[in-house]
Amino acid sequence: MSTPHFDPAKKIRVAVLGATGYAGVELIRILLQHSRVKLAVVTSQQYVGKRISDVYPALADRCDMILDDIQADKVAAESDIAFTALPHETSTAVVASLIERGRRVIDLSADFRLHNPESYGHWYHEHQRPELLSSAVYGLTEIHRKEITEASLIANPGCYPTGAVLGLAPLFRHHLVQETVVIDAKSGVTGAGRSSVVELSFSEVNENFKSYNIGVHRHTPEIEQELSEIAGEGVSVLFAPHLLPINRGILSTMYVKLRPTPDETAVAEIYREFYKGEPFIRIRPPGRFPETKDVRGSNDCAIGFRYDPRTEKLIVITAIDNLVKGAAGQAIQNLNLICGWPETYGLQSSSLIP
Amino acid sequence: MSTPHFDPAKKIRVAVLGATGYAGVELIRILLQHSRVKLAVVTSQQYVGKRISDVYPALADRCDMILDDIQADKVAAESDIAFTALPHETSTAVVASLIERGRRVIDLSADFRLHNPESYGHWYHEHQRPELLSSAVYGLTEIHRKEITEASLIANPGCYPTGAVLGLAPLFRHHLVQETVVIDAKSGVTGAGRSSVVELSFSEVNENFKSYNIGVHRHTPEIEQELSEIAGEGVSVLFAPHLLPINRGILSTMYVKLRPTPDETAVAEIYREFYKGEPFIRIRPPGRFPETKDVRGSNDCAIGFRYDPRTEKLIVITAIDNLVKGAAGQAIQNLNLICGWPETYGLQSSSLIP
Amino acid sequence: MSTPHFDPAKKIRVAVLGATGYAGVELIRILLQHSRVKLAVVTSQQYVGKRISDVYPALADRCDMILDDIQADKVAAESDIAFTALPHETSTAVVASLIERGRRVIDLSADFRLHNPESYGHWYHEHQRPELLSSAVYGLTEIHRKEITEASLIANPGCYPTGAVLGLAPLFRHHLVQETVVIDAKSGVTGAGRSSVVELSFSEVNENFKSYNIGVHRHTPEIEQELSEIAGEGVSVLFAPHLLPINRGILSTMYVKLRPTPDETAVAEIYREFYKGEPFIRIRPPGRFPETKDVRGSNDCAIGFRYDPRTEKLIVITAIDNLVKGAAGQAIQNLNLICGWPETYGLQSSSLIP
Amino acid sequence: MSTPHFDPAKKIRVAVLGATGYAGVELIRILLQHSRVKLAVVTSQQYVGKRISDVYPALADRCDMILDDIQADKVAAESDIAFTALPHETSTAVVASLIERGRRVIDLSADFRLHNPESYGHWYHEHQRPELLSSAVYGLTEIHRKEITEASLIANPGCYPTGAVLGLAPLFRHHLVQETVVIDAKSGVTGAGRSSVVELSFSEVNENFKSYNIGVHRHTPEIEQELSEIAGEGVSVLFAPHLLPINRGILSTMYVKLRPTPDETAVAEIYREFYKGEPFIRIRPPGRFPETKDVRGSNDCAIGFRYDPRTEKLIVITAIDNLVKGAAGQAIQNLNLICGWPETYGLQSSSLIP
Repeated sequence: MSTPHFDPAKKIRVAVLGATGYAGVELIRILLQHSRVKLAVVTSQQYVGKRISDVYPALADRCDMILDDIQADKVAAESDIAFTALPHETSTAVVASLIERGRRVIDLSADFRLHNPESYGHWYHEHQRPELLSSAVYGLTEIHRKEITEASLIANPGCYPTGAVLGLAPLFRHHLVQETVVIDAKSGVTGAGRSSVVELSFSEVNENFKSYNIGVHRHTPEIEQELSEIAGEGVSVLFAPHLLPINRGILSTMYVKLRPTPDETAVAEIYREFYKGEPFIRIRPPGRFPETKDVRGSNDCAIGFRYDPRTEKLIVITAIDNLVKGAAGQAIQNLNLICGWPETYGLQSSSLIP
Repeated sequence: MSTPHFDPAKKIRVAVLGATGYAGVELIRILLQHSRVKLAVVTSQQYVGKRISDVYPALADRCDMILDDIQADKVAAESDIAFTALPHETSTAVVASLIERGRRVIDLSADFRLHNPESYGHWYHEHQRPELLSSAVYGLTEIHRKEITEASLIANPGCYPTGAVLGLAPLFRHHLVQETVVIDAKSGVTGAGRSSVVELSFSEVNENFKSYNIGVHRHTPEIEQELSEIAGEGVSVLFAPHLLPINRGILSTMYVKLRPTPDETAVAEIYREFYKGEPFIRIRPPGRFPETKDVRGSNDCAIGFRYDPRTEKLIVITAIDNLVKGAAGQAIQNLNLICGWPETYGLQSSSLIP
Repeated sequence: MSTPHFDPAKKIRVAVLGATGYAGVELIRILLQHSRVKLAVVTSQQYVGKRISDVYPALADRCDMILDDIQADKVAAESDIAFTALPHETSTAVVASLIERGRRVIDLSADFRLHNPESYGHWYHEHQRPELLSSAVYGLTEIHRKEITEASLIANPGCYPTGAVLGLAPLFRHHLVQETVVIDAKSGVTGAGRSSVVELSFSEVNENFKSYNIGVHRHTPEIEQELSEIAGEGVSVLFAPHLLPINRGILSTMYVKLRPTPDETAVAEIYREFYKGEPFIRIRPPGRFPETKDVRGSNDCAIGFRYDPRTEKLIVITAIDNLVKGAAGQAIQNLNLICGWPETYGLQSSSLIP
Repeated sequence: MSTPHFDPAKKIRVAVLGATGYAGVELIRILLQHSRVKLAVVTSQQYVGKRISDVYPALADRCDMILDDIQADKVAAESDIAFTALPHETSTAVVASLIERGRRVIDLSADFRLHNPESYGHWYHEHQRPELLSSAVYGLTEIHRKEITEASLIANPGCYPTGAVLGLAPLFRHHLVQETVVIDAKSGVTGAGRSSVVELSFSEVNENFKSYNIGVHRHTPEIEQELSEIAGEGVSVLFAPHLLPINRGILSTMYVKLRPTPDETAVAEIYREFYKGEPFIRIRPPGRFPETKDVRGSNDCAIGFRYDPRTEKLIVITAIDNLVKGAAGQAIQNLNLICGWPETYGLQSSSLIP
């Protein structure tokens, strides 16, 4: 099949599969602000037959569509592009069906992010459709813009890898990094999805802070794949995620040993050059770090850094909203890209303050 | 002076005075989404000379305007309409100056909300410009739409009165209320403004819940003024505010003894009729109450009610975002009204979920 | 069987059934501070075979007991008194078994709180052992001290009824109340137990506030039973619970129309007299209301009130920690009572601040 | 003057200077549970003449003492030992006065923690009484137990250094550490004291997460002083603090390159040996990390670690309650030590769960 192209002057019909998860409903929130898109299909395995505004009253009178179950034929018939925000495996089969029916798919699961089926098998489980891995493009827009434009299947990045890779890419591209980078990342709870496990209940998470899966989190190979590709050599990182008692936001504090003695002005120049013209990257002056509230509700990735002369380390901090740049917002940035629209369509609104 | 009118086809220049308070920055957040408005002047007493995006990095590259101090002549020269989001007294003088210079003003302070100078004197302090009170229009859009259209000075309602009056107005209009209504209201912390008092510090508010100013809160006369006008007779309410450990949102639980034995279907019909065509009022089916998250970030006022046959009381609950419908959003709804634009301009985006 | 009595000079062996729920683990936390008690048995249906300190690492080296499943014979053999903190129905059968084996039981479920089986059937479901209802004593210590001393089966009060009844009892005892009292109550999330429903997940509860079950909450008949008994006549209340995004604490704001024109000094005197000598009741001076943080972690019930002359209502506010005075603390207060110890044993420590 | 010694069988009279700050009131909370102590003097600069229970109603009927202003003579006359929980400089003068009057002092400020006046001058400002620095003992109990016993002036450690040094001490003692250790620390808001700066107001901190003072925080020299002493050679660390939207707790995630290829069992053995018999150190099995809620309200320091073979780093995480082991609890542990009592007196109670 050939990649379908779209007339940028026409409205595109989109489907959101898995519309009642947090990434799904965030897609809908943003798509409702997008003037070039017609929301054509919304599905939910759990709430089929209900209105999405019954599940999320905030959508009342804004989106009262009925939630369908997933039927690939119907989705393919009624939409031009599908966002799939589904659990693993569920995602694989549906995505394959839609691709076979000639639809372009932006998949928000982890199923197509790793190029290497062995790596996927090691970190997840045996891949059901390994042949699709080679055609999928990793949807970190700032890094893979060109390939995304032509892709049928876009594997939208994980939330942690988005914040980590965007913060480190310029350094690895310039071969400035020595030793293992430590990525101490802290995420709000929506990063875990709409979940009913007791560990994510309010009383357990509130007034608490903890690490989890240090060194063994599944986003590790995704970060390493991307940084290795950028560096042109194998990169290992120590990725240490933590759970913040907030709804939205990831702050990634990264500790880097640079190859020559660094100079903050030179580092600043490298970042500015690397991200020149990027509409969603906000580079702070040296020594000023972003906070999660700077990006809540927006598609921004804010980047700050400081060189610590005492320990000869560069500290880089990135802040993103895990549901926007870390999920739905980047997916729509990719939609804009493949449709030939400005990447900011539907994504211009600023954050709630506070 | 006569009320200036605007060509609805042209962009309007607006000033935001007190732009770095929470209501001020919320005005800016929304105005940036408003295609018919040019933000012309922003002022701040505390941060004069800084960029507003230095104070609120979330605005970086969206609004990097320099904060002025307040000079009535300059504001009048550079803007067509001014929003004043200033402390009491500061507000009175500036508003008077701008009105004298022929500018229309939407004032978010309490200074012009009460029609009666004695009442103002009783609940606040002696009014500095009592002659302006009679020309000011109370800016609760759904109730005073017609007068607002023609007004030079709009006294934008308090956050609590907005939620309380909108929830009770249909009942008082139909003379259905017996006895004193109890309004048990709970507000997020931004309702207190951007404050440095120790009582509003994180460690004091977090993991706590308390009442304050029960029966003596300054929003009481505002609620009673409006309900009395609607009822055509003197109305007293028992207003009991509480402080919630959340940023945004007011939930007002109201207990009403109705005159005849009520019937939920008839009550529903009264609300639907009263608010027919209103773009921001969301009436729930009987027995379904709104939550603050249903309206966070939006200009909606969601209304639910239930008749309790055991105690023969009607319970009415309204939810608003105190910074949107309770402050900046309603101010912009009023701006749209006086400019002849659809009231929803700049206000269509839906809430963050979650 | 006759009620067993204890030698107040000896250590008592206690069992905690349902030790891994929030009320259960709070029992353990307090019992570990209690010098006259030996914790002899702890059970858990979900974690049988694990150490309780594996489930709650805060207990490491303080209580590393193995969690048993529930075997009435073993519990009866190894303990003198049992606390049952189990779900409905599970509780009924176990409690009956233990009572038959001559053990005294303090039950924290709702199963034995209502005296009237029809009422229980109406608000819950058909009672499995209705004959036990008549022998159970409602364990609101300040109100039923005398009966509790002799009881085999103590039905420990619900959290909401504890705060509501303690706040209203003096007024009903003195026949001062006219019309229906409104109880607008707000509870922290632990009141719902250790739960995995999505509605109680962090992302859903945080930054939100809502009402639930207004007028139909199962604690309503409990409150009415107690107030009716105190008043000597049938009492109806409008009970309106709300969910606070905090872990612990209930604030109940109560609106009362008093029979004669009230006088704050007289009301204060009535409260002081009614609660004279009570070690856990903290009566505030007129016009000063308690906050939930005043009682967090303690067994106190703080009571404040104010007469509002404008609306002729008395506002009464009580604050309790739902897991202490609202559950485990009161259960241990009852334990102290039946063992002939000072009621404050194990319960003297003050709250965390903040 | 010679160091006063106490009869361990008698009650000691203690003074708490700065009793209304968070560390001060935590001292009082714990001292009220301490059977060998008589609280003799409490002072407050801000609330002099008020009862402490007026400032903190949670203390009502537990501690209703009147707050004095600070008079060194009076404090010296009425107490045997003084805790000083005062701002910098205020502390220096009072501590000097009390020492001169032969009183033992446990100072919770930073004024006497650094041995080197130049270092103090570099990180703070010129020291007012540098001659006292040499006699002060750094009060990290597990490390300096012997010197503390004899000291007149105990400089109670900072909250961050307590968590960091306890987590790293065994590794540095055994000379296992290569390269610079990264300490990524996250603290609850009470660590900043009872403050009225707008940056610590609820609306600014809630739903946010940020770093601050990375590489330049004043606790850095304290950590380095202690680790250098333990290692017997100069140690530099990269200390990166962050602000958590919770009241209490510090989680320190530390990244260590070990000298030989490490083995988790051997590391576990080193920790267990180093902390053998310590009543407040909780070492977790390899691979299991503590959370802040495991220690909230207790004097514990919980330590977990994991060796990551992919990156050849040891990750060590410690959790403490910043107001207990990080301040008041450790101060009372030191009090117990100098009085010849078991270190756990007054400190046995377990944490609130949750």
